[in-house]
Amino acid sequence: MADRRSYAIGVDIGGTKIAVGLVDSEGNLIDSTILPTESEKGVSDAAARIHQAACEMITAQNLSKKSIMGMGVGCPGPLDLKSGMVMNPYTLPGWENVSLTQALEDAFGNPVRIENDADVALIGECWVGAGKGKNPVVMLTFGTGVGGAVRCDGRVYRGVNGEHPEIGLMPVLPDMPPDYSGVDGSLESLASGAGIAQQGEAFGFEDAAAVFDAAQGGHREAEMIVQRAYRAAGVAAWTLAHCFVPQRIILGGGLMNHHFHHFSHTMRDYLSRAKLLPENSIDIAKAQLANRAGMIGAAGLWLMD
Amino acid sequence: MADRRSYAIGVDIGGTKIAVGLVDSEGNLIDSTILPTESEKGVSDAAARIHQAACEMITAQNLSKKSIMGMGVGCPGPLDLKSGMVMNPYTLPGWENVSLTQALEDAFGNPVRIENDADVALIGECWVGAGKGKNPVVMLTFGTGVGGAVRCDGRVYRGVNGEHPEIGLMPVLPDMPPDYSGVDGSLESLASGAGIAQQGEAFGFEDAAAVFDAAQGGHREAEMIVQRAYRAAGVAAWTLAHCFVPQRIILGGGLMNHHFHHFSHTMRDYLSRAKLLPENSIDIAKAQLANRAGMIGAAGLWLMD
Repeated sequence: MADRRSYAIGVDIGGTKIAVGLVDSEGNLIDSTILPTESEKGVSDAAARIHQAACEMITAQNLSKKSIMGMGVGCPGPLDLKSGMVMNPYTLPGWENVSLTQALEDAFGNPVRIENDADVALIGECWVGAGKGKNPVVMLTFGTGVGGAVRCDGRVYRGVNGEHPEIGLMPVLPDMPPDYSGVDGSLESLASGAGIAQQGEAFGFEDAAAVFDAAQGGHREAEMIVQRAYRAAGVAAWTLAHCFVPQRIILGGGLMNHHFHHFSHTMRDYLSRAKLLPENSIDIAKAQLANRAGMIGAAGLWLMD
Repeated sequence: MADRRSYAIGVDIGGTKIAVGLVDSEGNLIDSTILPTESEKGVSDAAARIHQAACEMITAQNLSKKSIMGMGVGCPGPLDLKSGMVMNPYTLPGWENVSLTQALEDAFGNPVRIENDADVALIGECWVGAGKGKNPVVMLTFGTGVGGAVRCDGRVYRGVNGEHPEIGLMPVLPDMPPDYSGVDGSLESLASGAGIAQQGEAFGFEDAAAVFDAAQGGHREAEMIVQRAYRAAGVAAWTLAHCFVPQRIILGGGLMNHHFHHFSHTMRDYLSRAKLLPENSIDIAKAQLANRAGMIGAAGLWLMD
């Protein structure tokens, strides 16, 4: 009976952890498990462990492999989508020049699709989260960095050669210094966890949370850093609204657990001042799927629509 | 014999002039004529004159109406693409709430399609101009204002409810004051003809050309305005590159007749400093079709592909 519905395995790969989930055709996460990434052990090692985790979940649900449409993988880029190779020596050292999708297909038997992690999270939100029924949707993920993705008319936006746009690197306050990307005053350098932490270092703060806490306590420099992060997000809202005219901008990532209210308030304020945008058409919403977005979206590569 | 090829009428509507052209299936502009817009006389009056001009060209080429696939129209927005209505009381007063496409179909007999003028110019360039064979393509048109359009995978990018993105209004130097759009330091306010003229007013300059001339002559304030326009374009290049990852950015419009070299030089310089863009993948090119782009692109709505 259970096999009359279809399922997929969704894999969310990060630098330290891999989340593997079993997702049904309605976008429900039926079961999930966390593995250490240990990318330095190589692609085949990870593929074997992901395969084992998937098989255990399939068996535990009394499913057969026939009811599994395929495996979807969300992974930090740069990716070569055609060959399935992950070329990210910073986050995933040891995986370069070997096809992750090939290794997973060899291990798992079922077909495998791979996507940029930010795109997969957006697909998850558009399937059963904050982006459901909205078009176009832009998602910004405020974590260590600022990731971004755009979905329009049911397709993830891609640039030349299928490149994933790095929206978080757009300049917002170009009188500020450049970061590692070479862009002056990028959104990421001013409003990401790492960016806020780096600005706080000069004043003795240990991390972004310490800067936010001190700002709330009235610490002048911390306040300045936090206000600048909000302003950066406001300017970014203007840019995204005029470039993409999305129906919804979704804000996700760790920073939004505590600071969604202030970020979204500033972004809405900026949007309300932009007189040539379509009236009442662009809103700001919090991501709903938290750390399940990657698994659900990756499975959605097989199950959505 | 001539009728074995197919043709379309391309109409490029502006606030003062309407250009009507006969275009063949290879994108050649066979014949064209210019009419006064006189929008205050209403939609039917303009439709009748456009129809007459089209018929004269068709007759002069010994063509029959059967060889005309249709009529394409490029028009300044806001447009309601479904109803074919033009809601632009500033540029086209007297046309609100009446369907331009319906009036043209009634007069012309053949089917009519309408598009935003910036989108139509980009379609023309992608068909037989600077965007040919490139994907995605972003076009910026530096005239009185700064218009923009994006084409990806053979489709013009559209936002919520089919809205045309107003890319020229993106903020680039948000410490500068807002313009009529409500956006602080927009590309348009700093780098359009009207924007440069307005900044020059305070120093006694009559128009943008006077500011550029004085800057070349070493006038300090004029130089500052012109350098800021270049910088605005450079920051815009960063934004467009990270948001859309285009294969090519096309620069068109009157300002580019004399200043393409400096604008494109600054934009290339900014792009070369952005380390996380795909290497050697994004270039800057000058529009090739000049004021024929609108007519050719509008006809391309019927003939392209």
